[in-house]
Amino acid sequence: MYDVIIIGGGPAGITAGIYCVRAGLKTLVLEKNAIGGQIASSPLVENYPGAPEISGVELASIFEKQAEDLGVQIEYEEVLKITTGKVKKVTTDYTSYEGKVLIIATGAKYRLLGLENETNLIGNGISFCTSCDGAFFKNKDVAVVGGGNSAAVNAIYLSKICNKVYLIVRKDKMRSDSTLIKKIEETDNIEILYKSVVTKLIGNEHLTGINYQMDGEDKSLEIEGLFLSIGLDAQTELVKDKLTLSEDNYIQSEDCLTNEEGIFVAGDCRVKTLRQLTTATSDGAIAATKAINFLEDY
Amino acid sequence: MYDVIIIGGGPAGITAGIYCVRAGLKTLVLEKNAIGGQIASSPLVENYPGAPEISGVELASIFEKQAEDLGVQIEYEEVLKITTGKVKKVTTDYTSYEGKVLIIATGAKYRLLGLENETNLIGNGISFCTSCDGAFFKNKDVAVVGGGNSAAVNAIYLSKICNKVYLIVRKDKMRSDSTLIKKIEETDNIEILYKSVVTKLIGNEHLTGINYQMDGEDKSLEIEGLFLSIGLDAQTELVKDKLTLSEDNYIQSEDCLTNEEGIFVAGDCRVKTLRQLTTATSDGAIAATKAINFLEDY
Repeated sequence: MYDVIIIGGGPAGITAGIYCVRAGLKTLVLEKNAIGGQIASSPLVENYPGAPEISGVELASIFEKQAEDLGVQIEYEEVLKITTGKVKKVTTDYTSYEGKVLIIATGAKYRLLGLENETNLIGNGISFCTSCDGAFFKNKDVAVVGGGNSAAVNAIYLSKICNKVYLIVRKDKMRSDSTLIKKIEETDNIEILYKSVVTKLIGNEHLTGINYQMDGEDKSLEIEGLFLSIGLDAQTELVKDKLTLSEDNYIQSEDCLTNEEGIFVAGDCRVKTLRQLTTATSDGAIAATKAINFLEDY
Repeated sequence: MYDVIIIGGGPAGITAGIYCVRAGLKTLVLEKNAIGGQIASSPLVENYPGAPEISGVELASIFEKQAEDLGVQIEYEEVLKITTGKVKKVTTDYTSYEGKVLIIATGAKYRLLGLENETNLIGNGISFCTSCDGAFFKNKDVAVVGGGNSAAVNAIYLSKICNKVYLIVRKDKMRSDSTLIKKIEETDNIEILYKSVVTKLIGNEHLTGINYQMDGEDKSLEIEGLFLSIGLDAQTELVKDKLTLSEDNYIQSEDCLTNEEGIFVAGDCRVKTLRQLTTATSDGAIAATKAINFLEDY
């Protein structure tokens, strides 16, 4: 029986593991892919304090070693099912485990365009997070894809750093707040391309441009960066019948405690205002601290 | 004129600086002592993900270099006065600055006993934070000083890791919650020493014991760790007439925004549930993101 089983080995899950094991708890982290979560696909992380100019893979491997050295058990298994109750049972594709506390840290995934070579170009021109990667495109030409608030905010953010920002919108208008639209219209170096759909990514090692169709007509752009702002999906399928979710499937929580006793949540999969490495590790520390307190009276 | 002036160069302030400068903002950090805030006095930091087994001084110097390399201006000056309004004026012991946004990251300070050699022994036996340093005292004898909830919680936390935990309480009873007192009474390896006051710290390089008076009688203990849980003071004197504070002088905020337009807060000086490196950097990222958004419409 584990004291704590953490589902997900991203920054939130690993931090929770570090805090739990240092409090003397028997702690298991289950990860289906690779430690580090979304940062593992980032070629350069510059905004995580204390680890300057590091690749995401390298940072993830430091996370992993740090947690294991402190005594966190990490298993590479996919969780298929959990049961609630005083003892929680976690069934994976390999075996099953029992724990007194669960911490859900399953993260979220950015939506992709579904184009050829797209996953290879992530981190090599294709990005999702302007505050993470925008600074790498200083004085360069970039595009943002999307018609909602996050696309609008990202375009405005990039306009301060980049030479030119194209905003590629599928429909004939944005569906973002009118104040954001006004701001975009007032910004000289943002150009909105309405009724436009990206059809091809150009570049092998690094993105050099895109082809797109505007109102059915074939066009192209030379750009070095393409920021996809077409949505982020919470990875919460596993818990959707157990935990209270928001309309868009993020886990509701108060100070990282969910509606189920002994189940805590940390990181991108919960309802929160900012999804960053720093806010993920913060969640991990808070969820673990709450779990440690909970176990005092178990 | 600066876009953003950050008061305090601890983990919260430095993170805010990194985020602001990467968003293209002219950013100044003012620090009166040393970058790193409270962690600078920690000999070993083990629970900050991504920087395993690092000294606080070393981590602080990485923070500093990372921020400066990205373009954050850091000045070692003490802020004496701020004025609010559309343009904020910051007067230091050396000069004055103007900024569009202020981020208050002035931190908090643990209270000390006021005994000889106490500051030298911080990090060498004397500690404040059990989730930071408790794991370094595995199977050892330690004491906690204090009679409130945090002392009780710290004693319970340490009882899981340490051989023996003495709880040194000035009065003839604890003033913590009854559930915590019950828990302590049920824990075999916690011994409460009522009506007791520490009178001397023993050990030069590292704490080896203490002298104390119990109800006027001189006694001594051999211990390797002494956790002070006698209070934490928010460093908010500077803003007490400008910002809404809690009863115990922490800055009230919603998502790091204070009651004053264009003034944000990050880190230990604000009302929050957990004060850790991870939660400080998270605050820094959130406050900076809010500041960046605020400046869009300045």
